[in-house]
Amino acid sequence: MNKRIERVLKEMADRGMDHLIICDPSSIDYLIHYRNDPGERMYVLVLSLDGNHTLFMNNLFYLDKELNLDIVWFSDTDDYVSMLASHFNDANCIGIDKLFPAKFLLPLMEKINEETCFELGSLCVDYIRMKKDENEQELMREASRINDLAIDQVIQLCATGKFTEKEVANQLAGIYQTYGCEGFSFSPIVGYGANGANGHHDCDDSLLKAGDSIVIDMGCIYKGYCSDMTRTVFYKEVNDKQKSVYELVRKANEAAIAIIKPGVRLCDIDKTARDIIAQGGYVAEFNHRLGHFIGRDVHEYGDVSAGFDMEVEEGMIFSIEPGVYLQGEFGVRIEDLVLVTKDGCEVLNSYTKDLLVIG
Amino acid sequence: MNKRIERVLKEMADRGMDHLIICDPSSIDYLIHYRNDPGERMYVLVLSLDGNHTLFMNNLFYLDKELNLDIVWFSDTDDYVSMLASHFNDANCIGIDKLFPAKFLLPLMEKINEETCFELGSLCVDYIRMKKDENEQELMREASRINDLAIDQVIQLCATGKFTEKEVANQLAGIYQTYGCEGFSFSPIVGYGANGANGHHDCDDSLLKAGDSIVIDMGCIYKGYCSDMTRTVFYKEVNDKQKSVYELVRKANEAAIAIIKPGVRLCDIDKTARDIIAQGGYVAEFNHRLGHFIGRDVHEYGDVSAGFDMEVEEGMIFSIEPGVYLQGEFGVRIEDLVLVTKDGCEVLNSYTKDLLVIG
Repeated sequence: MNKRIERVLKEMADRGMDHLIICDPSSIDYLIHYRNDPGERMYVLVLSLDGNHTLFMNNLFYLDKELNLDIVWFSDTDDYVSMLASHFNDANCIGIDKLFPAKFLLPLMEKINEETCFELGSLCVDYIRMKKDENEQELMREASRINDLAIDQVIQLCATGKFTEKEVANQLAGIYQTYGCEGFSFSPIVGYGANGANGHHDCDDSLLKAGDSIVIDMGCIYKGYCSDMTRTVFYKEVNDKQKSVYELVRKANEAAIAIIKPGVRLCDIDKTARDIIAQGGYVAEFNHRLGHFIGRDVHEYGDVSAGFDMEVEEGMIFSIEPGVYLQGEFGVRIEDLVLVTKDGCEVLNSYTKDLLVIG
Repeated sequence: MNKRIERVLKEMADRGMDHLIICDPSSIDYLIHYRNDPGERMYVLVLSLDGNHTLFMNNLFYLDKELNLDIVWFSDTDDYVSMLASHFNDANCIGIDKLFPAKFLLPLMEKINEETCFELGSLCVDYIRMKKDENEQELMREASRINDLAIDQVIQLCATGKFTEKEVANQLAGIYQTYGCEGFSFSPIVGYGANGANGHHDCDDSLLKAGDSIVIDMGCIYKGYCSDMTRTVFYKEVNDKQKSVYELVRKANEAAIAIIKPGVRLCDIDKTARDIIAQGGYVAEFNHRLGHFIGRDVHEYGDVSAGFDMEVEEGMIFSIEPGVYLQGEFGVRIEDLVLVTKDGCEVLNSYTKDLLVIG
């Protein structure tokens, strides 16, 4: 049995769960080194304290190697929820993946006797995924190194002033490919001017105007691991208000990073950045958490926010991304990934945070 | 109140549900004409028989227009599941979206009194989405018309013999863009030779060899509606076995399409194609449903399979996609979208199904 599964079983035992239903493809891959994209079909790994681990697989899925566990194959027309339920005849408490959808969960609950409890169980895996091992750290470093190189090319494209947001984003797909990436870790955001004030802006056909801020939030997947960084630059000119907001956000980013070391609480890292931005006069304008964990998925369990009082530990990787968004005017966000080390942190992004006026 | 919501409320009443939780962004958009991509965050429309409909929105999401219903705004650090639960104080039976994830459903169930029942409720919307209105039909026609044009360009790229599967797929992104599409409706499959025998093949760096089959399964999104078609062509040469499998699959595709009209059962359409392929000697080699419904999502509720005895009705749109997959050798799939008409069906794809040997 591999070490990762061993650690999950320990978490399960600590929480009184005798079985754990895992459906997150990233978590399944993390545990058994097999990646599958099931779409709307059921795809479940059941870990059990008794050591009988089972993968439930639709026979449409292609298995390209031997897996060292039981496999229950089913077809679209089988009653696969009953097949899954029959696995839990003597279960006391079943941990459920946070992503397990109602279409499987509700009929499963109906088929299992009433004394069995169902509890959210993803933490058994998610806690372990929070801390990256050396191999994972190396892949995360490389994914961010590529992102540093790629953002320079993106900024050069923007500097020409010729391309719409969409066109820049499309060219980024090709740039990542030249670096051997599998693709985007998320749809890139290229936000010109007021578009940058919408934290989840979809790239559109806008063109640059002198004085626009440009928010560029982008990441690739490299050998299964994600990068994610944001830089904000200015096209042709920058006014005093933009400058002061930029320097405020940069100060928040750097102050938060400066306090990161094992033992510091995630909420206090958030507070450090948020207080600085509040002192600068912006509270409602920084309307999101300071950061999120990242690894195989671009958003993994764990927030750098007021809601998380967990202490950081060596090997954790998360984003630090303060922002200020002035609706109808412009936005600024500056984001790096950090890896917690023995006595501080390593910033995985090295692209400059100096204020750049391009074009 | 709009007609679509009215029809959903009638379905709810028929099923004894006084509230319905909808989280599928496509369904929410279908009902209130507002599209949001919530990622991992909670985003829920609650429809209630008493007419008090409410949208639960994270304040990170951007609302670009007035919506004619109540909105409950919350932040990442609020207890938004309790806010949702408080909406159901006097609920008898709550319909739950099939996609609603355990991370929201399990805590919600804990917060609501034990007499309240929870039932899968997506059918209240999904049944209505199965039948497309005239405006939707027109968009689906256009999305498939674009797909017919685009596949011709893809086949021409393949004919050069120069490009890997991945490179062809990447170029397709640009082709769709020139036709004004929002993007892919799913990651396209371009499978050379034995790769075409894997129904869910990820495009790789393979290059064409003479005698390869090429399975091309592709679709775009056009004004929010999806296309999806498959053609199989042969590079430079085709042998007798490939020819006979091709003609068998084509016969199955055409025979299934020929029987479609209102009143025919989905399972019987599946059987028509499956019997022909079985008579040709292939049973296990046609290992998937004959088709799926499609519209705003590339896979919507409803299968053309042995598991669905529903009768088809005017306005339904689904795929007809028989296939034969010979592991290690080659695969053949031929897929069209069909729209059920008053007395038959309209095939939305017109690209030739004659056997093509290219290059």
